[in-house]
Amino acid sequence: MKRIQLIVSYEGTNYNGWQKQPSGVTIEGVLNRALTELLRESVTVTGASRTDSGVHSLGNVAVFDTSARIPAEKICYALNQRLPEDIVVQASCEVAPDFHPRHCESRKTYEYRILNRKFPLPLERRDTYFFYRKLDVDAMRLAGQYLVGTHDFKSFCSVHAQAETTVRTIYHLDVIKDRDIVTIRVTGSGFLYHMVRIIAGTLLQAGTGERVPEEILDILKAHSRSAAGPTAPAHGLTMIGIEFL
Amino acid sequence: MKRIQLIVSYEGTNYNGWQKQPSGVTIEGVLNRALTELLRESVTVTGASRTDSGVHSLGNVAVFDTSARIPAEKICYALNQRLPEDIVVQASCEVAPDFHPRHCESRKTYEYRILNRKFPLPLERRDTYFFYRKLDVDAMRLAGQYLVGTHDFKSFCSVHAQAETTVRTIYHLDVIKDRDIVTIRVTGSGFLYHMVRIIAGTLLQAGTGERVPEEILDILKAHSRSAAGPTAPAHGLTMIGIEFL
Repeated sequence: MKRIQLIVSYEGTNYNGWQKQPSGVTIEGVLNRALTELLRESVTVTGASRTDSGVHSLGNVAVFDTSARIPAEKICYALNQRLPEDIVVQASCEVAPDFHPRHCESRKTYEYRILNRKFPLPLERRDTYFFYRKLDVDAMRLAGQYLVGTHDFKSFCSVHAQAETTVRTIYHLDVIKDRDIVTIRVTGSGFLYHMVRIIAGTLLQAGTGERVPEEILDILKAHSRSAAGPTAPAHGLTMIGIEFL
Repeated sequence: MKRIQLIVSYEGTNYNGWQKQPSGVTIEGVLNRALTELLRESVTVTGASRTDSGVHSLGNVAVFDTSARIPAEKICYALNQRLPEDIVVQASCEVAPDFHPRHCESRKTYEYRILNRKFPLPLERRDTYFFYRKLDVDAMRLAGQYLVGTHDFKSFCSVHAQAETTVRTIYHLDVIKDRDIVTIRVTGSGFLYHMVRIIAGTLLQAGTGERVPEEILDILKAHSRSAAGPTAPAHGLTMIGIEFL
């Protein structure tokens, strides 16, 4: 038996998120079925980031155990033959048998992309959030800096979350403007349910002037979801990659 | 009666190209129907660039005549309400009644985008051509320089074309690499049928080393479609914009 790690990219548009659900097609479900067929044994993957419905990925991580003899590095080639075009495995390799992608320290990077112009662009509609009001990117960047560090992010967590602790560390938060795309790029020790989308919704309020950047401090102190801004739509969010420490 | 100009962006994936066909949905057909409904009179648009099936646009130009009283600048707002999400009009304005977008001098810019990496990326699959072989971008750029200027581009024109003359002018041709995306950006006085896609297919051969850059001179001299490289797939091509002189 060996443990295999996959780097998984996908467009989330047509999926009910990563995690297996009572109904609806999920990334995890498609991977399990393709791997089970390929390796001719029952396979169940464990994902590092259980992304929501509609969220995309460039580099999510999944592991599974197999007794199949196929070389670990070849699995991605054979597996991609059996996957739909909106899920592509970028790499496969063997990892330690006790490696668990959610139970070890890691740095996860997400990007929330906003298309900021007068009218939407058809080619950008699936992986950017269209926002036509003028944005002050410097104010967004300033607001974002108040989130960097180790904080109780309870205000930036969906009330439906079931995390034991709401303390997390954000290592970097950049707001990058490239023509009419504003990207919020955030790296952290882990993220609470809806946390990146609530951060995006709150930084958008700083961008429009609805809030001053310093209000982030009050929002953090409030320990209440209602203190923060709205949850920005899922389709603007992409899981970029995970570094295991 | 006034003549209105539209700047039209679209994702070409689900269309049978710009121009009205005996069968299949076209960009032109969708615009005609939406405008006819909106303005309550029969409307027929004339496009500047009759893009092929699967080709995208950021800034194609169309004109039509109307006697409706709606202010020209407001048409785009009302029209977008009636268009599917893969066609968005970016602007509308009144132009001279004799302005014809194909019968006046212009500079058209196209981009052909190549995703050059080991495995495809789901989010890029609709508007880049996935190409996994290593590309020498400097060789592509060098090859492209031989195309700049006024030449007979017969070798870079589909044998199915019906143009009166195959002489065209290319003002700029850049090959830009940004991470794993290689973009061929070309501006010219006009392009023959499949010309940009044949240029892309030929520059790709220069990128892999199948041809040396100087061979472009021989290809131009040959005046024969068979001398050039293959026609690169439509979905990598985007009409960027048109400047009328």
